[in-house]
Amino acid sequence: MRAKVYVTPRKGILDPQGRAVEGALKSLGFGAVGNVRVGRFITLEIDAPSRAEAEIAVRQICERLLANPNIEDFTFEVAAE
Amino acid sequence: MRAKVYVTPRKGILDPQGRAVEGALKSLGFGAVGNVRVGRFITLEIDAPSRAEAEIAVRQICERLLANPNIEDFTFEVAAE
Repeated sequence: MRAKVYVTPRKGILDPQGRAVEGALKSLGFGAVGNVRVGRFITLEIDAPSRAEAEIAVRQICERLLANPNIEDFTFEVAAE
Repeated sequence: MRAKVYVTPRKGILDPQGRAVEGALKSLGFGAVGNVRVGRFITLEIDAPSRAEAEIAVRQICERLLANPNIEDFTFEVAAE
């Protein structure tokens, strides 16, 4: 199965990378842009007997490795493929 | 409007971050995982008179700043919100 994981800076947490991108966009003339947040997009393949089991594993993977629980949130989708 | 941008290492391009995550997952006991690719997930707000115009601006933003055209691909969605 194929999983897509979206990791985002938690709301209210300062996102320096997003601020930098926003500043760069304004310098490039894109003044109508705001609230830029930069996170990570991870795709992976996982062998599991069912989608439910794949989802359990992907959740563990997010909690243990992909997302920093202090400052980040994550969501994911698992698709049979 | 709200835009979501997904930047991914291009297929066939070595993704060292993905390889590192894959190695770490195997060390943690997630052996059934493969083909890990790490990209970026960017959200932003953009003022535009129409969704079509917002899409044009977001495409330019991706091409000029968010994605490296030599080694990355991008997709995006724009939603009125």
